[in-house]
Amino acid sequence: MVENELQSPERDTDEFTLDARIVSGVLEAIGAGDAARVAGLAEDLHPADIADLLEQIGPADRRALIALWPDAIDGDVLSELDEGLREDLIPTLPHSVLREAVRDLESDDVVDLIEDLEEPEQEIILRALGESDRAAVEQSLAYPEHSAGRLMQREVVTAPEHWTVGEATQFLRRGDDLPDQFYHVILVDPRHRPVAYVTLGKILSSRSATRLCDITEDSFRTMSVLDEEADVAYVFNQYHLISAPVVDEDDRLVGVITIDDAMTVLDEEHEEDVLRLAGVSEESSVSDGVFDVVRQRLPWLVVNLFTASLSALVISQFTGTISRIVALAALMPIVASTGGIAGTQALAVAVRALATRNLTSSNARRVVRREVLAGITNGISLAVVLGLGGALVFGSPLIGLVLGMAMIVNQLIACLGGVMVPLILHRIGLDPALASGTFVTTLTDVMGFLAFLGFATWILI
Amino acid sequence: MVENELQSPERDTDEFTLDARIVSGVLEAIGAGDAARVAGLAEDLHPADIADLLEQIGPADRRALIALWPDAIDGDVLSELDEGLREDLIPTLPHSVLREAVRDLESDDVVDLIEDLEEPEQEIILRALGESDRAAVEQSLAYPEHSAGRLMQREVVTAPEHWTVGEATQFLRRGDDLPDQFYHVILVDPRHRPVAYVTLGKILSSRSATRLCDITEDSFRTMSVLDEEADVAYVFNQYHLISAPVVDEDDRLVGVITIDDAMTVLDEEHEEDVLRLAGVSEESSVSDGVFDVVRQRLPWLVVNLFTASLSALVISQFTGTISRIVALAALMPIVASTGGIAGTQALAVAVRALATRNLTSSNARRVVRREVLAGITNGISLAVVLGLGGALVFGSPLIGLVLGMAMIVNQLIACLGGVMVPLILHRIGLDPALASGTFVTTLTDVMGFLAFLGFATWILI
Repeated sequence: MVENELQSPERDTDEFTLDARIVSGVLEAIGAGDAARVAGLAEDLHPADIADLLEQIGPADRRALIALWPDAIDGDVLSELDEGLREDLIPTLPHSVLREAVRDLESDDVVDLIEDLEEPEQEIILRALGESDRAAVEQSLAYPEHSAGRLMQREVVTAPEHWTVGEATQFLRRGDDLPDQFYHVILVDPRHRPVAYVTLGKILSSRSATRLCDITEDSFRTMSVLDEEADVAYVFNQYHLISAPVVDEDDRLVGVITIDDAMTVLDEEHEEDVLRLAGVSEESSVSDGVFDVVRQRLPWLVVNLFTASLSALVISQFTGTISRIVALAALMPIVASTGGIAGTQALAVAVRALATRNLTSSNARRVVRREVLAGITNGISLAVVLGLGGALVFGSPLIGLVLGMAMIVNQLIACLGGVMVPLILHRIGLDPALASGTFVTTLTDVMGFLAFLGFATWILI
Repeated sequence: MVENELQSPERDTDEFTLDARIVSGVLEAIGAGDAARVAGLAEDLHPADIADLLEQIGPADRRALIALWPDAIDGDVLSELDEGLREDLIPTLPHSVLREAVRDLESDDVVDLIEDLEEPEQEIILRALGESDRAAVEQSLAYPEHSAGRLMQREVVTAPEHWTVGEATQFLRRGDDLPDQFYHVILVDPRHRPVAYVTLGKILSSRSATRLCDITEDSFRTMSVLDEEADVAYVFNQYHLISAPVVDEDDRLVGVITIDDAMTVLDEEHEEDVLRLAGVSEESSVSDGVFDVVRQRLPWLVVNLFTASLSALVISQFTGTISRIVALAALMPIVASTGGIAGTQALAVAVRALATRNLTSSNARRVVRREVLAGITNGISLAVVLGLGGALVFGSPLIGLVLGMAMIVNQLIACLGGVMVPLILHRIGLDPALASGTFVTTLTDVMGFLAFLGFATWILI
């Protein structure tokens, strides 16, 4: 079972990634300037795969591909593209292509597409929409970024709560303007407030005379337009929702969020966590050029340059000790580095638990206490190994003692820092994942060097 | 906008987490031994929230809660519990509770529940099921762990491909054994091979005489029972699927996977990535006790103890140099630590890109080249700052030169290692996230010390 778990979930799965032969075929066709072959190879791909193709090839090939095959970019492909690449691409597209691209999209997809654009490009797209679509998009844009109001689609299917299955069925059969995808009929009261929902499966399998209010689902939950999209994703995942009505300040129904949108948000939130923890801008993508990469990473590196200077400052206080026992210089990174790993471990667990709402004010105290005990236990275990090793290699039990004591102190600090830093960031309203390695490893480096060289000066000198 | 992005998605969201007052109320009631109050406070909670409650309180309180309120644990709560906690709990539950708990679950939930149990507990649950349910569960268990066969539910709704909307509607209205949740009617050929599907929305909004095969969806994709669940999650996310039929080796329909299951898998995959990258066992949970934590983290710490000894070995080769210029001991962690951050950044981006299938054999060469160029560019930028700083502080341009040269070399190695290690792990069939910090920071530590002390010996001595 262990072996099983260690195996990559990506193993043997090239059937699920964009076929490398298609990519190389397209690249060859681009090289040959063969427009027909480019289109022939790529036009049957799913829009998500065309987006992947555009992301995976280099910037020059991308420009060449679009020049050879202007139809490559339709609304669905734009929706699927990485945000960064999309922002780069849109201003380069002819207005006619843009207009054509957004015409068939649902309102939530149009919002997603244009919310990050500059005014002039926004205008082009808005002008391309019909009157009512434009109004819907503009209303969504009035809600804050990353809110449920931006995420929802405005196309909803409702029925008065007193209707029967037969009435609903007749209504649906007449309805020529139903959304592409819907999973529930939302029951609303006379003031258009959602009160329950019924699955389409229930409607199809119930008798005509059945009242809709007798076959509603327990899972019914509404979201508010101002709820954060991260909360929406959490609620969908926690309660296994398929769709959720969205209400305005007066509890009136204004839209609906479906699980596929929630899944996309969940995916983006995870991406943010992984990248922020590692100290990288969350826009990072494989399609970025070298200078994007430098811009995304250099800031934290410069921060680290200064925080690492703190370690240097601490060590420089002990040059007297080091010059007398130069072996200390070789040993001191061991304690610091093992502390860095321990801090990263505690940090990852805490950030993840905060993201899944499993670390709350109810159990924070218990979790912190657990980290302290785990830090001490790990510290003692590692101290025994390192202390004995150090004593044997250097023939000096005192060096072993210094190594062991410093290890225990630093493991304790690592676990405590790993859980406290994200908890504090969360408490003051910042993303706990911003506690990226840098803070915690600075702490464990500084304290590791200080404890080791301090004990050494005290005991060995 | 930057401020906006830095704000925590978890801010002001306590309304979406389990109410802390309920948790403290339950803990008080447990302390007072008040069974009625425990049940009164908790029984209206969603099963997912009851599971969270059990996870958030300590082990002693958990045992007391279950003793006071045996009905706490039903099948839905068991399904929602963290795997680790579930494995601990199930053997302690009375068999009558277990039997009752699994009776109402769908076959895929029962499979999820029992696949990690020991034989005797599996037997208890299997015996509690009806004849046909047991057969379904046993068949699912015959598929490999983490496969689509384990994930799917066997309850499917099918129709012959030649049926009309009217025939399907009649069939559904008669059907008393329909699954709780279904979103499509799957069209099958005479050999029970799925050929297309129709959304319930389309069936409801089409005329009776319409043929089902004329209103099918483009999104139709089948999965194989042997596909890995990670691939299933990827396909759902990539192509925005709501459900996907699952076929056996002969392409016959054997089940269906719905998006909520795919979302759960996606969430678990992300959890694995974050925790593995940080060198923690992926079973980690806030409900773990101290010794679970030690068991999950100590192995990588011990590994790190040995890899960190490599750094010590490298430094010990240069004690002659250090004893002549002891300031080098203070400066050497700067280059190593900044390299560690750069390696972690490159690693996180590469692991994430491999997980989302955006880093493939088609663009690996370009991404590696980009990392090399980014490493050199970052290295030069940092070298200028650090080199000037070092030269000024120590009044020695040569020390600045040594710092700068070592920084460039180590940044290059960090970026190269950060992308190559996960690529190689992926190529040989291991999870790239296993490249946890440890490997890459060992590389950057060792090379950082070697470059810095090597250049120092060459230039300064």
